[in-house]
Amino acid sequence: MEIEKDERIDIIPGSNLKIIQNKKKFSYGMDAVLLAGFSYVKRKDKVVDLGTGTGIIPLLLYSRYRPSKIYGLEIQSEMADMANRTVHLNKLEDKIEILNTDLKEISKVFDKNKFDIVTSNPPYMNIGGGVINKENNFAISRHEIACTLEDIIKTSSFLLKNKGDFFLVHRPYRMVDIICLLRKYNLEPKEIQFVHPKVGEKPNLLLLRSSKGGKPELKFKKPLYVYNEDCSYTDEIYKIYGIDKENINV
Amino acid sequence: MEIEKDERIDIIPGSNLKIIQNKKKFSYGMDAVLLAGFSYVKRKDKVVDLGTGTGIIPLLLYSRYRPSKIYGLEIQSEMADMANRTVHLNKLEDKIEILNTDLKEISKVFDKNKFDIVTSNPPYMNIGGGVINKENNFAISRHEIACTLEDIIKTSSFLLKNKGDFFLVHRPYRMVDIICLLRKYNLEPKEIQFVHPKVGEKPNLLLLRSSKGGKPELKFKKPLYVYNEDCSYTDEIYKIYGIDKENINV
Repeated sequence: MEIEKDERIDIIPGSNLKIIQNKKKFSYGMDAVLLAGFSYVKRKDKVVDLGTGTGIIPLLLYSRYRPSKIYGLEIQSEMADMANRTVHLNKLEDKIEILNTDLKEISKVFDKNKFDIVTSNPPYMNIGGGVINKENNFAISRHEIACTLEDIIKTSSFLLKNKGDFFLVHRPYRMVDIICLLRKYNLEPKEIQFVHPKVGEKPNLLLLRSSKGGKPELKFKKPLYVYNEDCSYTDEIYKIYGIDKENINV
Repeated sequence: MEIEKDERIDIIPGSNLKIIQNKKKFSYGMDAVLLAGFSYVKRKDKVVDLGTGTGIIPLLLYSRYRPSKIYGLEIQSEMADMANRTVHLNKLEDKIEILNTDLKEISKVFDKNKFDIVTSNPPYMNIGGGVINKENNFAISRHEIACTLEDIIKTSSFLLKNKGDFFLVHRPYRMVDIICLLRKYNLEPKEIQFVHPKVGEKPNLLLLRSSKGGKPELKFKKPLYVYNEDCSYTDEIYKIYGIDKENINV
């Protein structure tokens, strides 16, 4: 296995899977881990992860649920190449397939209504909503340059079977857009969890499951707190990472 | 001042205002107090409270902000009569006016785009969403019998000036309907606060400010916890009630 300049191989905590990352481009964050922890997937399921980046979400979902097939879509060719090398490194070519494609052209790649699960940890910032990072890979991974929130939601609805689930992690300040766009594309928000840095603080992430063609009624999960008062990770975070509290290195 | 059968006069904690309530019909709850605490109103403002019930929200807003005029709309004639007697009891006829009217016929009562603030603590349950209480006043105050969530939001939008604020308290499980209807009627959700019985528990109320014609961006307030671990009220709740912690009777 070849590693390119600025790349390194990390072990994904709580698994025996390896991941290639490049510090100069984009390394996965806690958001991806929380999304994978929030998602639930059956063994028979066919899954698509939109904007897969390093491939972290397919790897975590495979590690936890062993679904029959996971496709990771990534528009950035270097990132897709790196994720693809990660799949080979783990010998998971039968289970995970990385596609270097634009999700706005999804109908050229997949038929509609064929998938059980779609996940996405998309760029959070709408254009104009933050300082654009000059490093292009960073920028595409963090801003809605290559695709908008609406593109992602529209694509998810295209891909999913009736009653299929879409799992999304995003910033709370976009919640109104998120909810209205989900309804627009027949993805009914069914289950939400807010992630708070600490007890008593505002949430800084939301996790949301929507069901294609689902009936209206939103269930709230208990809030998730990341840090204890003393800035150590909470037990819930250890559990989501799937690692021994005495042995943490996240 | 006459008090009718089953009625009693209570002092509103944190104020020197009195309120007539009838235990067999409907007494105000913490929701109304939290909504009044969440709302902010200027002295020059003209305010409408939709579904005012006992008149608790006009009284609390008057006590706190002294706005120039507050109208309380109530469809149930007995309830409106009781609220009206409360206004007289407090000698607030110049400041608070209770109108026994159906908010679906708002255009017969008020011109559009004339108010700075609208508040509502509406019935929470949509028809079919719970067991209907046989006592009619209870049922109308708790279920969407006399009006739907959409009626309330549509009426609020009718009443408000551009940039006027609509303050709503509701149940979190209706959040998707609430947000989509607000956008439909040009009331942009701007500020949200979740109320949790305790730290670590799911929210059971949401407080939401929407701005007519406002720009999209939702701000979260810190979560509000009602009870401490030992089931005493939190300091935040004492503060919202405006009462001395040593002297509580809520």
